[in-house]
Amino acid sequence: MFAITILGNNSATPTELRNPTAQVLQWQDESYLIDCGEGTQKQMVLYKIKRSKISRVFISHLHGDHYFGLIGLITSLGLQGRIQPLYIHAPAALEAIIQLQLEVANVQLPYPLHFCPLQHEGPIVEDNKIMVSAFKVRHRIECWGFLFRQKKHPRKILPEAARLHHIPAAFYEKLQQGLDYTAKDGVVVANAAVTTEAPVAKSYAYCADTIFDESLAQKVKGVSLLYHEATYLHDLADKAASRYHSTTVQAATIARLAGVDRLIIGHFSAKYDELDAFLEEAMAVFKPTELALEGVCYLT
Amino acid sequence: MFAITILGNNSATPTELRNPTAQVLQWQDESYLIDCGEGTQKQMVLYKIKRSKISRVFISHLHGDHYFGLIGLITSLGLQGRIQPLYIHAPAALEAIIQLQLEVANVQLPYPLHFCPLQHEGPIVEDNKIMVSAFKVRHRIECWGFLFRQKKHPRKILPEAARLHHIPAAFYEKLQQGLDYTAKDGVVVANAAVTTEAPVAKSYAYCADTIFDESLAQKVKGVSLLYHEATYLHDLADKAASRYHSTTVQAATIARLAGVDRLIIGHFSAKYDELDAFLEEAMAVFKPTELALEGVCYLT
Repeated sequence: MFAITILGNNSATPTELRNPTAQVLQWQDESYLIDCGEGTQKQMVLYKIKRSKISRVFISHLHGDHYFGLIGLITSLGLQGRIQPLYIHAPAALEAIIQLQLEVANVQLPYPLHFCPLQHEGPIVEDNKIMVSAFKVRHRIECWGFLFRQKKHPRKILPEAARLHHIPAAFYEKLQQGLDYTAKDGVVVANAAVTTEAPVAKSYAYCADTIFDESLAQKVKGVSLLYHEATYLHDLADKAASRYHSTTVQAATIARLAGVDRLIIGHFSAKYDELDAFLEEAMAVFKPTELALEGVCYLT
Repeated sequence: MFAITILGNNSATPTELRNPTAQVLQWQDESYLIDCGEGTQKQMVLYKIKRSKISRVFISHLHGDHYFGLIGLITSLGLQGRIQPLYIHAPAALEAIIQLQLEVANVQLPYPLHFCPLQHEGPIVEDNKIMVSAFKVRHRIECWGFLFRQKKHPRKILPEAARLHHIPAAFYEKLQQGLDYTAKDGVVVANAAVTTEAPVAKSYAYCADTIFDESLAQKVKGVSLLYHEATYLHDLADKAASRYHSTTVQAATIARLAGVDRLIIGHFSAKYDELDAFLEEAMAVFKPTELALEGVCYLT
């Protein structure tokens, strides 16, 4: 399961009630931070997200509303006495900005800070539980989306059934992989007789600031949860295009084309006080849509 | 009159209820921002401080809790379509940090941004109404205090009395300066007979992060309002000294030595939830002390 908590759902400038973009993705004992607008560390305090648990930060692009809160978080983690490493996956130019700010303050972080510049589309983090890939999205400056995909779980062995069929433990790993068992006497035990389906591997795709771009649907095809920006209502489609942003209808169209299970929309322009129309417009195109609301945790 | 609104009163890291250092000084139609910790622009929205009115920003030093909010404010002002210039008085190294962040985002500000590096103690802004001076304070890195001093108002002419004594209008400016009038027949009209005292010129001194340093008292002597940091209660005087910070008692001692009218203390360590003890300890040494509370406007 992935749990995504929205810390900021606004575009460009903060308003009294909404903050610039930041999200936390938690699963098992890991926490990843996705974008980090100004004020993110305070939002983490407010919504009881343990700052110390964050192991990796993913920054989509270097417009301030997506990263101005990062230097504050990095220095606060130092003041907290963190010792475990922090990995920053971001456009390459971010490293110099952070280093310069640490330097002028004469700050020696007590933990290793690893910059992992985004360079090519494809996997950027992989272990036996998860794979994170980066993909390009079309915005005014270099901008990346991120796809978080759980590794497929092995099938679950039914121990009593397996014993009944005298399957040796040495074959259990192959059972988990879905293979049938053939006994010495040639009798075949169908895999389905001794295992059950594993829970579906979940996937979350994060599409930060982007113009409407149908080719994106291919990159996020079939994910269980998609976040796609929707800066404007659809009557401002021209304005959205001129600023390399998307509308409600466009975000929902990508979700429909990609055949995702659910959609969250966010990055709302500061000009809107009420968000109800965002939900209505998007749901008319793609029903399983929700608004990205600050403090709310979306599970998949 | 000066009106100082506290936007952040915390040190180092923000807490759920307190923000890093920022203050706005308003007088007549001018607004100055003094320090600009992360989240300052949001605090300005919350407390109805018009961001567009800020003409100058004064940054005491380059620890993040005093300037991480500046780049967000600068870019938001651009998005608001500001055209009037903004002056930044700050340690020289800040310019490269800001320029680099504007550059990677490909931002062209629609208004002129003037960097005025702090280099020597003494006046940094002066017109016919105000003089702002910078002075050095002792902290772990280069750090500056600021002294805002209204120009002495001219004496106020009593028009009826002046006419009664047949004083020509050409002499009125000299009356305002306090001179007596000598008529052609040698009769002297005492200035006090035709003018009244001007209101007292107010002054505000801002002492950002500093170790306890008695020489500071001379620099802020007799101001009508002094802000002095008090990061810790006095039982942590050793810790304060080791980190180049001050305690309640030390801040109040500077106020007493300097003979100021009133003192505000702030920059409270995030470790304290309750602030009552700060006020008690400081008032025991210097009675006219107040806590710097967010959203509160202090007048002098």
